[in-house]
Amino acid sequence: MSGWLAIAGLGPGDAALVTPEVGAALAEATDVVGYVPYVARVAPRAGLTLHASDNRVELDRAALALRMAAEGRRVVVVSSGDPGVFAMASAVFEALEAGPSPWRALDIRVLPGITAMLAASARAGAPLGHDFCAINLSDNLKPWTLIEKRVRLAAEADFAMAFYNPRSRARPEGFARILALLLECCGPARPILFARAVSTPEEALCSMPLGEARAEMADMRTMVILGSSTTRTIARAGQPILYTPRFVAAGA
Amino acid sequence: MSGWLAIAGLGPGDAALVTPEVGAALAEATDVVGYVPYVARVAPRAGLTLHASDNRVELDRAALALRMAAEGRRVVVVSSGDPGVFAMASAVFEALEAGPSPWRALDIRVLPGITAMLAASARAGAPLGHDFCAINLSDNLKPWTLIEKRVRLAAEADFAMAFYNPRSRARPEGFARILALLLECCGPARPILFARAVSTPEEALCSMPLGEARAEMADMRTMVILGSSTTRTIARAGQPILYTPRFVAAGA
Repeated sequence: MSGWLAIAGLGPGDAALVTPEVGAALAEATDVVGYVPYVARVAPRAGLTLHASDNRVELDRAALALRMAAEGRRVVVVSSGDPGVFAMASAVFEALEAGPSPWRALDIRVLPGITAMLAASARAGAPLGHDFCAINLSDNLKPWTLIEKRVRLAAEADFAMAFYNPRSRARPEGFARILALLLECCGPARPILFARAVSTPEEALCSMPLGEARAEMADMRTMVILGSSTTRTIARAGQPILYTPRFVAAGA
Repeated sequence: MSGWLAIAGLGPGDAALVTPEVGAALAEATDVVGYVPYVARVAPRAGLTLHASDNRVELDRAALALRMAAEGRRVVVVSSGDPGVFAMASAVFEALEAGPSPWRALDIRVLPGITAMLAASARAGAPLGHDFCAINLSDNLKPWTLIEKRVRLAAEADFAMAFYNPRSRARPEGFARILALLLECCGPARPILFARAVSTPEEALCSMPLGEARAEMADMRTMVILGSSTTRTIARAGQPILYTPRFVAAGA
């Protein structure tokens, strides 16, 4: 069996942020599988079949990829960002665990990519420069009570926080509740960043004190990053720099 | 003033994990500044001056880079992994904030890279596939009480946890205390991963139940990742796959 499966991260959008490792896997692939807008980022060529599918069919897509690899094809499952962060790698392993046991002998690799929070953090400065957490606010993935519990504990731990999938048309009120909870736990002066579509032509950044943030500032293409209690804002012409120092003093 | 400063992530080691954006910045640079082993990863060429310095002089290194950019040079500060995750970006912004105000007008960019936890996670499967946190265990950066508090709260939040700088010769006992604390909070069956020098010739991975983990399994080149309560282990020939599913059931 000469087939293989690579689960590859395409980064946040700019081709200059795709690793050579991912480029090499795509160049050797016979099949590319993924959500429509991510497959659209792969250049068509002779000998390469593109399998684009809709959102919310991740397990079907994963099973298709595993079946094709088991048949000897060279398959790349593409994700935006990093495939291991709220993306396709977990879906593929869920399908693998539930599937026929010969799938476990397949040659499967995860090829990391630049995940959205690190692309956004880089554009703003270094708000994730000290301890931090990443929380997916999509409440079709877990109970709302668990999201609130994690946010409260993250605030108590004084982590900087990166929020994926802050807001969708289907549940617009959830993010407003999170902002209210953060305001209660962290106070109005805490810096918050809204980074939309980083590294694409639609990129837009804005940061402000938490007390001025509004839920409408985020959509599903926005990464939201809240600083820790030590995060600093350096004012200058244009977008200020947000960064979290490397040290926390004793007694802080 | 035509100088600029780029703070660039070289990824975990393999050149195939360096983004084209970082490669382009290095190709245009007049000066590269960084810790000795990271500068050693940059190919020398005519017109490029390499400024390698020792560990623990991050602020001096940052000030040198800012001064040279202010003088019109094209400077790349290199970090391993991602420069915004426990690396040089925060040090540069600390020096910028403390430095002369004209520095704030400099053209400064942070160029993201593949950070160690995501490279390690990719090799093991997808243990960071759901909510997670990143904690630096180097206790010369913050009080030990704060490290313990964060670990306890992260366990209560049921985050997967990625630990940077778990262990050094100067403070070998700290990581043993963290393992004991994790065992108390998370129980002996929780999967833990030790991923050393990922993507280099010295790469070594091992995973096991937390109850079998020993502090000696980590050194300063090791990334340690603890699963959440939902992280699964898929047994197969060779290294098992660790992954955290995308969903948490209601009532969990």
